[in-house]
Parts: sequence; C-alpha cells; structure tokens
Amino acid sequence: MVSDALTGAERLVHAAAGAGVQVCFANPGTTEMPLVAALDQQPGVRAVLGLQENVCTGAADGYARITGHAAMTLLHLGPGLANGLANLHNARRAHTPLVNVVGDHTSWHLPYDAPLASDIAALAATVGTVRTIADSDSISEVTRGAIDDAHRMLGVSTVIVPADHQQHRAPEPPSEPTKPLARTGVGSARVKEVATRLREAGSRAVLLLGGNSLTRAGQLAAGRVASSTGATLYSETFPARAERGGGLPNIDRLPYFPEAALAALTDADAVVVTGASDPVAYFGYEGIPSVLTRPGTLVRLAQPHEDAEEALLELADLVGADTPVPRVVAVSVPNDAAALTGRTVGQVVAACLPDGAIVSVEGGTCGYPFYTASAAAVAHTVLTNTGGAIGQGLPCALGAAIAAPDRPVIALQSDGSALYTIQALWTMSRERANVIVLIAANHTYNVLRTELGRHGNSEFGPQAAALTSLANPLVDWVTLATGLGVPASRVARVADLRHALTDAVASGGPYLIEMGL
Amino acid sequence: MVSDALTGAERLVHAAAGAGVQVCFANPGTTEMPLVAALDQQPGVRAVLGLQENVCTGAADGYARITGHAAMTLLHLGPGLANGLANLHNARRAHTPLVNVVGDHTSWHLPYDAPLASDIAALAATVGTVRTIADSDSISEVTRGAIDDAHRMLGVSTVIVPADHQQHRAPEPPSEPTKPLARTGVGSARVKEVATRLREAGSRAVLLLGGNSLTRAGQLAAGRVASSTGATLYSETFPARAERGGGLPNIDRLPYFPEAALAALTDADAVVVTGASDPVAYFGYEGIPSVLTRPGTLVRLAQPHEDAEEALLELADLVGADTPVPRVVAVSVPNDAAALTGRTVGQVVAACLPDGAIVSVEGGTCGYPFYTASAAAVAHTVLTNTGGAIGQGLPCALGAAIAAPDRPVIALQSDGSALYTIQALWTMSRERANVIVLIAANHTYNVLRTELGRHGNSEFGPQAAALTSLANPLVDWVTLATGLGVPASRVARVADLRHALTDAVASGGPYLIEMGL
Repeated sequence: MVSDALTGAERLVHAAAGAGVQVCFANPGTTEMPLVAALDQQPGVRAVLGLQENVCTGAADGYARITGHAAMTLLHLGPGLANGLANLHNARRAHTPLVNVVGDHTSWHLPYDAPLASDIAALAATVGTVRTIADSDSISEVTRGAIDDAHRMLGVSTVIVPADHQQHRAPEPPSEPTKPLARTGVGSARVKEVATRLREAGSRAVLLLGGNSLTRAGQLAAGRVASSTGATLYSETFPARAERGGGLPNIDRLPYFPEAALAALTDADAVVVTGASDPVAYFGYEGIPSVLTRPGTLVRLAQPHEDAEEALLELADLVGADTPVPRVVAVSVPNDAAALTGRTVGQVVAACLPDGAIVSVEGGTCGYPFYTASAAAVAHTVLTNTGGAIGQGLPCALGAAIAAPDRPVIALQSDGSALYTIQALWTMSRERANVIVLIAANHTYNVLRTELGRHGNSEFGPQAAALTSLANPLVDWVTLATGLGVPASRVARVADLRHALTDAVASGGPYLIEMGL
Repeated sequence: MVSDALTGAERLVHAAAGAGVQVCFANPGTTEMPLVAALDQQPGVRAVLGLQENVCTGAADGYARITGHAAMTLLHLGPGLANGLANLHNARRAHTPLVNVVGDHTSWHLPYDAPLASDIAALAATVGTVRTIADSDSISEVTRGAIDDAHRMLGVSTVIVPADHQQHRAPEPPSEPTKPLARTGVGSARVKEVATRLREAGSRAVLLLGGNSLTRAGQLAAGRVASSTGATLYSETFPARAERGGGLPNIDRLPYFPEAALAALTDADAVVVTGASDPVAYFGYEGIPSVLTRPGTLVRLAQPHEDAEEALLELADLVGADTPVPRVVAVSVPNDAAALTGRTVGQVVAACLPDGAIVSVEGGTCGYPFYTASAAAVAHTVLTNTGGAIGQGLPCALGAAIAAPDRPVIALQSDGSALYTIQALWTMSRERANVIVLIAANHTYNVLRTELGRHGNSEFGPQAAALTSLANPLVDWVTLATGLGVPASRVARVADLRHALTDAVASGGPYLIEMGL
C-alpha cells in the first residue's frame, strides 16, 4: 500500500505488520499516543493491554516461544522499559525474538531534561540491540531492521521512537521483505566430529539438550543417539520451550543445585552441548567450581541460536541408531485423601493434563516434581523461567494462550514469584485467555530458606524469618484473583485438586486454583 | 565495636547503622542471604519486606522525604534492581537521598555468565552513582561512602556487593563518622541580586518554589516576599515534599499542561527559581516551546540541592517584608448527596484531613482538585510523584507511614497508577502502617484520553479505547485489597466518603476506600 498521508506511527505499525508481527503487548503513555492511534489506522496488529510492563514483556516472551515469530511490546519511555526489563532479561536468556517499541520525548524537547527523561538506550542495551529513530523518514526501515535483529540474533531488540517522529506525516515507502526466523546450520564437519567423540566416550557421554533440540523431532533423535551410543540425556535446567510426554524419551533436567549438577556431568568424558549454554553453576558457592564439566570434556554440537534439531537428526543417522520403542509408563496418581505437596501436585497435574497443553512452570516447589511426573503424561509443551528473574510464569502463560488459543495453558506457579506480576490475571480476564493458574501457596520464599541454610544460617533470626515469609498476612489468592476478574477456588487435598483442575480444563480458563501446601 | 569475626555483610549493616540508616526496604534473593542473616546479627536496621522491588524503592523514597535521612533498599541482582528502577527514577527527580544495596554473584563466578548475570552497574548508573565492592576489606568504607554520596548529592547511590565478599569474615574497623545531610548555602551575593531583580519586576515577578523552600518557614518567608514585592508565588508542579494548610499562604502548583504553565510564566519579567528545577514543559507539544520562561527572565535563587529555605528567609529580610496575616478560609464542603467527582473528593479530603497528616498524591483526577481545596485545610504534608513514573503513590505512602508512625497518612491515588505497585498493600498490612488509601476508581487512563485528543484523535478506534480503559473487567478494589490483607469499603456519594474517611482516620490504617467516580 502506498499512501502519502501516513504518520510515522502508522508507518511503524504498517512495517511491523508487514514483517509478520501480529500482536503488540502494550502499556503506553503520553509519548506513545500516536502509536496507539495508529494501531486502529493500520490493520494487522492486535493490541493487548498489560497493567504493568513486566506483564507485557513476559507475555511477549511466552507468545514468541510458542509462535517462533517476534512479538512486539509498546512501552512508555525509560521508566516503562525499566518496569519490563526483568522479563526482557528472561527473554534474552530464552533466546526469544522480541521487539520493544519505546516512545520518547519529542526530539527537540530532549535537551531540557523534563521530569520523565532518562537514559532509555542505556537501559535497553542491557538486554539487546538498540536503534533510535532519528527522523521520521527512516521509521519503516528501522522498524524492519529491529525485527530482523530479533530474528537473526534470536534476541531482544529495542526501537526508541521520539513522539514528533511518530506524528510526522510522509509517504509510505513500498514494503520490503523481511527475513523470517531461520536458524544457522551446524555443518557436517562438526556433526562428524561429535559422532566420533560420542563413539569414543560410549556410556561415559552426556548429551545436554537446549534450544530447538527440545522439539519432538530433536528429542526422538537424541533418544536414538542415546540408545545407540549409551550416552545419558539431560535437558538444560531451564529450557525456554521443551516438548514432553506423549511417548518422548524421559529426559530429565540437569539438576538446579550445583552438587547434583556436578555429579551428573563430572564423570562424563564427553558432554555434548546441543543448543544449550555451557553448563555452569547457577550461583557460585564456596568449594564448588563454576564450570560443571571436567577440562576438555565439553563438546559443542550446536550453539543456542543454531539449528540443534537438524544437527541431532544428522547425528542420529550418523551413529546408525534406530528409533527406540517408546516405553509407555502410567502416570502415578496419589491417594485421593493425600495432602498436597510438591510431589502429589506434580503427579495430579501430570495425570490431569489435557492433550496438547502448554505448561508454564515457575518455582521449584511443584515445578521439579511435575517434571519428574510429566514424562509419562500426554504430549505437552513446557515453558520455564530461563533467566531467573521471578515474576515470569503468569505473563508467559498469558502470552502462550494468546499465541495458541486452541491449546489449554496451565500455569504451575509458586506463590512468591506470582506476586511480582500478579497484574497478569487482569489481562487473562480481559482477553479470556484459556489459562488455568495453579498457585502453590506455601506462603514462604522456600528456596531462600534453603539458601540461608547453605550459608550456615539454619537457625535464622526474626528478621531473616520475616524476609523469607509471605505469611502475616496470608495472601488470600481466591479473593485476590476475583478482584482482578479471574474466578478462583481453593483446594487442600489430592481429590479436590483433581476435581477442580478437571472442571477448569472442561470449562476453560481463566481460572485460578489456590493449592494449600 | 571492634570484633574479629564479622562477615562482610555484618560489617555493611554495622556501617549503615552507624551512619544513621534505620530501615532497609528489602526484596532479597539467594545472593543477598548473608546480608539477610546480618540484619539479625547487627542491631539498628529494621527490615521491611516488599513483594516487588518497586514497592521497596518507592517506600524508601517516601521514608527519606519524611525523615530527611537516607533510606536503604536491599535488592536482588540486576533484575531486582531493574524492577525498582522506576521509583528510583522518581527518587532521583525528588532529590531524595537513597542507598541501594544490590547483591551480585560471587566475584569469581561472574565471568561464567550464569543465567542471572546482567550489567547491574549500567542499570544503576541511570539513576545515580555506583560503587562495586571489590574486596571484603573495603566493605565498611564503601558503604559509608555510598551513604555520604546520597546525602551530599541528594540523590540515589548504589553499592553492588558480590556474595563472597558478603561472606568473608574479617575484623571490623573502628566506626568513622559520616556526614549528615547538609544543604549548601546560597551566599548573600546571590540573594542580594535576586532582591534587586524582584524590586525591579514588582508585580511582574514570579517565585517558583521547590526543594526545601516548601517547608513552613520557607513558604512563610515566600509569603512575606510576595506581600512586599507583589510577586506571584507558585510551587513546582510536582514537589517532593510540601507543607500545606494550617494558615500557610495558598501557593498553587504551576499548572501541568504547558499552555496554562506558559500563561503563568511568560508575562513575568523575573521568574525566581528557588529550589525547583528550571520550568520546562512536561512533554514537548508542537507549537509550544520547551522552555516556559522568556529569555533573560529566569533568575536562580537556589538549586534543588541548595538551602532554598535559608535563602528565602534572607531574601524576605532583605526586601523588608512583614509576615502577612494568614487569611483563614473555610474549607468548602460539598452537598452530602453529591456524586463523587475529582472536585468533590478533593473538598471532602481537605475537610476531613486530620491535623498533621501526610498526603501522598498520585494521579490528576483527584490530585489537582485536592490541592486547590487543601490550602484551607489543617496543617499537613504533601508528597507527589516527582518523576512521572507511575506506581509511586502507594509505596511512597507506605514509606512515609514507617518514617512517621505518629502521623496519619492518606494515599490519594488514581486507580491506573495504583495497579503498577499494588503489592504495597500487603506490606501496609504486615507493618500495620497507618495509611488510608483512597482509590479514585474511574476505570480509565483518563490523562491518556486527553492526550489522544491533543494528538487530534478525539474520536478514537476500538484498540485505542481498549488501551486507555481499565474497565472489562472492572477491578474490584475492595476484594483486591482484602486479598492482600487490607480491609476496604466502597463509596459513591459525598456523605459516604466523609463517613468512611472519618471512621478510618479514627480507627487507623491500613484501610482502603474505593471511590466510585
């Protein structure tokens, strides 16, 4: 479409839509009003409002993990971007293509250091690339460039758009094609080298899977490699997206705590890293090395941005492996009257999972036990918190539901982390997102109590106790969710959870279940 | 105290307490556990937990505005700091002394780019000074230096503390004195120059008051200057802290929208800026200049960090002014049956204000009308959102209540901005903070609808309508507050608000009143 009367904001939206952007997770302010108006003037981009920016960025991350295409956010100046940075950090660690559009003061107003002025570019640079629109004429080209950045790097890019350039009218240049997300191939030489290392190491090899090696095809190929060479399979501890269940091999996650992670890797003569980052300890603990592999044992098959799935398929063919017959394992279901614990919750959720569900997991209390139980579940997709900035699970579930309206989404969520971005519930309600939120309500930052113990403070004082407790007052999750437009109920026993979850799946979300642990 | 067995974390807390820090608004994680333990081992610093970091930083800002002494925050790595940056931006604009203590990975673990690693220093530098603890021995000195920074600059300083340096035990060096907050004097020459300019300009002069010129003494002095010279008085649009009522002169705020602000200043032959920033438009609008004063008319009496109160007292003596007799004006009280509007709410709050109250104002709907009405109220202190990063009002009210437990705090709060940091309610409940939250529930980002109109979009499309609406679903504030531990009620008429507010003041907070507008 060529028009001689498009505002800069309209040309930006037009360029984004032309490059395949379909959804914009937005929390705009005054300096983004031309962009808000443009979303109605130019077709193709659906706006979804978040009440706080970290909801928008986390939802964009979840959306892009499911669609494989860049999601867009619209944020208000430096403070709006700052509010969304934590989930952009997680998106960066997830290698998610994501484009932020951040408004700025009218360009000629910037030198006057008005109250809302701040260093937007410095903030954005901490999570990815930054481009600033210097004149209205370049707005389409720069927008396409930012989307290309996100797809090429598998990362976060930010476009800063001063308000005057949004308002300025000019002819729309003809659309130009943009590049879809395409992963770089690994090359046969590397695959052959890895095959040799695997054959040498035999059962003293580990394949550590991440990136797009955790597709169904990738995991099946990894299963063939394992059955042929004797290698052990691990998924990275916090995969951005992993298929699971439905007959896939039971690939456990590399343990979180470094002693167990070290035990899993240190005896291996070859640790073949395939789409994952190098395995290092999550935190540095005295007496435990940062690097979890022995010197010389780390072998790189594919970088996170490379095509790990294709490399695994080639590797499986090379080592001459047949597809192993999947072991069908029944899901263990706990006793109806049993209390809810991490383990029983994990088992119930695995047993009740609807086919094709997406499960957004945040928090260890139920997250680890669920992963243990879910190998035997129906086919589903798991999304986890890749960067450790908590408050990611609910927004990610929201974005996934918007990306895949035909798939039920379960947010298996610890209470402490849920409270960082609790505003996500409101957007779930507004968008009628099919998300069932399961809150593991133990009213404690439990991992911090463990960590206090690790620092030699197993008996901690009143201030440490208060700083790691969410009791006093107890958050009433049912009331809180209702206040934000999401119906909810509370369960305390296995049978209650099973019934509530089954009913919620049948009725569709959004719905919240407070699980008293 | 000299001990040979203090951890770095204990020495940090000891140094902070020694420098007068009494409260730490904290949202710690794994890398801050030694500091959490230290808060119990070393006396003097009270920890207050926030469920999200922007609550902590906003509360620290409110606390320091009331006490005049640096508040401290404890934040978890880059993402934790990022979550709190928006209210640090506001603190920077408020010239608030504030020290962030941010944990980091164990120093030898940093090169391995673990999932939670990010550029903490780059984030912190956007709001103030940054110091990184490079070894355990320097921890006391660097902590004292950061507190000195905050007091000297009247600004935000950040100390980054790797976990290993927190854990390392070493002798505690003897305490060294730190400098309390002391503003720089203006000097008589400048005061004399300003007196001359004021005499020349006569009634064509404006005094624009900010910083510590908005104390009672400062405003009374400004009143004397005005009565002697004929100058007009304005407060800056968003003062960090202003005394008001109780017979003080009725000093209006400089209008927010630039046309009105320009009209207030452009005819003046002298605009004497006293503790405020230079008056510039809040945003840049086509056809309206950024600078609101005519060339050559701006006269600087005191910078924001200088002693504006003292300068005004000297100026008042110099222009030979007597204290004007305060006009006692009765508060207008609207009809009992009247609907709640910005105007009627402002009047009721002004009329019901308990003596010595602190009022945290965020949002224009009721904020501007309250300021108009409150000149005739009893003596009180107003805190406003200085930097425009919304989500500031509730945390600021919380911090003020902790700073002054003997003073009732009213949070006069728009609904849209309240939702950014709604987690503040939970901490109000835990700390039994005497805060009465008044939510102006119009379920709209009203200012954005005004701004859309200013951009020529008075009739806006469905996406613009949805992005500026908080309806669908309606937030149920009573239920939401209850879920977070704060009792609440809903009012729709003047009489109901008057009764609810009077009762809440009598019973003490925390309490929330949803005002249906």
